[in-house]
Amino acid sequence: MGLWTIDDDRLRAALLAVRPDDTALHDEEDAGHLAELVARVVWSVLIEPGDRVAGLLIERLGAVEPARVVLDGASGAVLAARLPGELGADELEAALARWRPRARWADILRALEGAARCGAHLIVPGDPTWPESFLALTDSPPALLWARGDASLLRRPSIAVVGARAATGYGEHVAMELAAGLAARDAVVVSGGAYGIDGMAHRAALASGGATIAVLAGGLDRLYPSGHEALLTRIAEQGLLLSEAPCGSAPTKWRFLQRNRLIAALADATVVIEAGRRSGALSTAGHALGMGRPVGLVPGPITSAASAGCHHFLRAFETTLITSAADVMRLAYGDDGVLPLDEAGEESTRPTGQSALHTRVLDALRPRRGMGVEEIARAVGESPATIRGALGSLELDERVQLGHDGLWRRAGSRASERSAS
Amino acid sequence: MGLWTIDDDRLRAALLAVRPDDTALHDEEDAGHLAELVARVVWSVLIEPGDRVAGLLIERLGAVEPARVVLDGASGAVLAARLPGELGADELEAALARWRPRARWADILRALEGAARCGAHLIVPGDPTWPESFLALTDSPPALLWARGDASLLRRPSIAVVGARAATGYGEHVAMELAAGLAARDAVVVSGGAYGIDGMAHRAALASGGATIAVLAGGLDRLYPSGHEALLTRIAEQGLLLSEAPCGSAPTKWRFLQRNRLIAALADATVVIEAGRRSGALSTAGHALGMGRPVGLVPGPITSAASAGCHHFLRAFETTLITSAADVMRLAYGDDGVLPLDEAGEESTRPTGQSALHTRVLDALRPRRGMGVEEIARAVGESPATIRGALGSLELDERVQLGHDGLWRRAGSRASERSAS
Repeated sequence: MGLWTIDDDRLRAALLAVRPDDTALHDEEDAGHLAELVARVVWSVLIEPGDRVAGLLIERLGAVEPARVVLDGASGAVLAARLPGELGADELEAALARWRPRARWADILRALEGAARCGAHLIVPGDPTWPESFLALTDSPPALLWARGDASLLRRPSIAVVGARAATGYGEHVAMELAAGLAARDAVVVSGGAYGIDGMAHRAALASGGATIAVLAGGLDRLYPSGHEALLTRIAEQGLLLSEAPCGSAPTKWRFLQRNRLIAALADATVVIEAGRRSGALSTAGHALGMGRPVGLVPGPITSAASAGCHHFLRAFETTLITSAADVMRLAYGDDGVLPLDEAGEESTRPTGQSALHTRVLDALRPRRGMGVEEIARAVGESPATIRGALGSLELDERVQLGHDGLWRRAGSRASERSAS
Repeated sequence: MGLWTIDDDRLRAALLAVRPDDTALHDEEDAGHLAELVARVVWSVLIEPGDRVAGLLIERLGAVEPARVVLDGASGAVLAARLPGELGADELEAALARWRPRARWADILRALEGAARCGAHLIVPGDPTWPESFLALTDSPPALLWARGDASLLRRPSIAVVGARAATGYGEHVAMELAAGLAARDAVVVSGGAYGIDGMAHRAALASGGATIAVLAGGLDRLYPSGHEALLTRIAEQGLLLSEAPCGSAPTKWRFLQRNRLIAALADATVVIEAGRRSGALSTAGHALGMGRPVGLVPGPITSAASAGCHHFLRAFETTLITSAADVMRLAYGDDGVLPLDEAGEESTRPTGQSALHTRVLDALRPRRGMGVEEIARAVGESPATIRGALGSLELDERVQLGHDGLWRRAGSRASERSAS
């Protein structure tokens, strides 16, 4: 019997099944490592995601000691005494009261066995794949991560692409285009595995040979939604499935909302493609904003309810309008500030100086007949000398032609072709 | 013979035809008023819209004296000498050289006669209907305005609604909705009379009994485009047609671009509904931004080239995303900062405190069977006491029901209906 009320060897065996490469687990002298891992599994079973009291206890006192207090049924007074001014005795007792109904070793072992059965691995803080970006989750980091697939994806640049389940054809098209474009730029596409936008983003990333991570609200042994079982299984094989909920957990509405904070924390930027006014995708965007991460939203027709949430966020918050994968990369990783020439675009709508004069001279030229310099000057409202200069430049650019009759015409007009032939 | 080289009585008669209510014109002693009006008509014939040298001369020396120098063929030295440091002699000579080919009395009288023939009135600075908002056109105000219709509309709050000629069905639909909504809120809809968005905006304003102003690039005797002759005639009858170009002027590309500055200056805010990357509607938005006026743009599908310019402006400049006429009114006239409740919308995506707990309890309840408090507490991860409190609140809100069997169910579920009956 070690630190816990059940046999250490049984716990060690169960943990090795979900951390086969953890050599420290074989070291029977290193009781602290085993205790830490067990404690984190215990917490993942005891609490609902986002529990701030648990977050505070683990941060300040470590995972082990408070877990023992819960499991042993001891008073919380000793814990509260160590965090004066941070955690009230009443608040702690209320937390203990909500955690204790779940403090059953049978459930804790079942979570570990379920994970082993579905091929999930356990990732904890300190592991090389634990996302540094979770530092942004100051008061409610997950106690652990369950992972199926290639955990090394957690160390690559990644973009969250999320949106409505009730996506339109437009939204699904855009999700495919953006996710494929991001995959082509070597960004990992992170999403929630849901119907609609999420599913399209995952599929497009896989289809274009890119990498994708699906963060689920329930346990990794319950692939939800069931219509995405094949897709999520493929992501487990070719990408990565993640959850902070233990195997056996149902995906509840609360867990979906908390799952969204993980998506926002994992990704370098979050892009929402379609979202109704009350879409959960907006909660992901809200979490990202709260962490100071860049948020982009794709606009759509204002007549489409599926874009109303995107428009609202674009107007109400410090967010960026997204029209392409290149926009997303700039949003997440910046650029040299110089847009390609074809994106500047307004030049021709603000003519000044030379180009303005040239526009006016070309305006003045008639399609069917040649014009003399004096007549052009009057039509344009410039002096004959100015007009001669402009005609000279335009002739060099092959935009006007001087005919054999001494009159000017636009180049390429039928009359000028005739006069040239 | 008065100030001008042709007969004052002939000029007075021509001017009375376009200013029938101008009693000062009858006063033969008031030569200054007549001279001022003539000079402004002269300028409108001499210059292209937006001529900065003319704007400077008129602002600093008045309209009359510089007009005489042009018409008399005198040297510009005397004018340049009066504006040292502001206007170089070379620049002035260049301007005189471009104006003089047009300085023909026949053309000036023809402009006045053309205006009278098509029922246009002449509006000049100092008239009660001269738009104060033209003060924003610091270096190139129009010398005058030609107007057909109800000039009193110039004193009402107004919104520019502009956009692409090559509008999509979506854009035209939005133009109709927005313009009708603005008309219903007593805003005058200002636009450019073009095909596509402009035409739809005018039509919707008229159809909903509202007021509309079309600002044209050419003379008011040439209703352009010809396919809008009926619409523009109706605007002259029920709204207002405006132009700074004299009758007889063709609508050239240059004049279209300069016309856009008048639309932007007239309106309290400018809204672009659809605009390709190089749409002229963006020049209107650019002018409005330059004057510090609010600019709104309607987003659309990112797959639609007709919305690309709107998206570009939304991203690149201090502009506002517009989804409704109410948005436009807020943009132009502000509000108390409180959005209606159904526009806040995110509440449900960010559950905290009570409502979060209630969500989790409702999540936990099964559709087909009742649950005891202990079971709910375990499922939710809260203490039984907390769950009892939440169930009490939810029962008051008629969202859960306690059955005869002592188990809780969601209210309205079939099981609860059965147990209640």
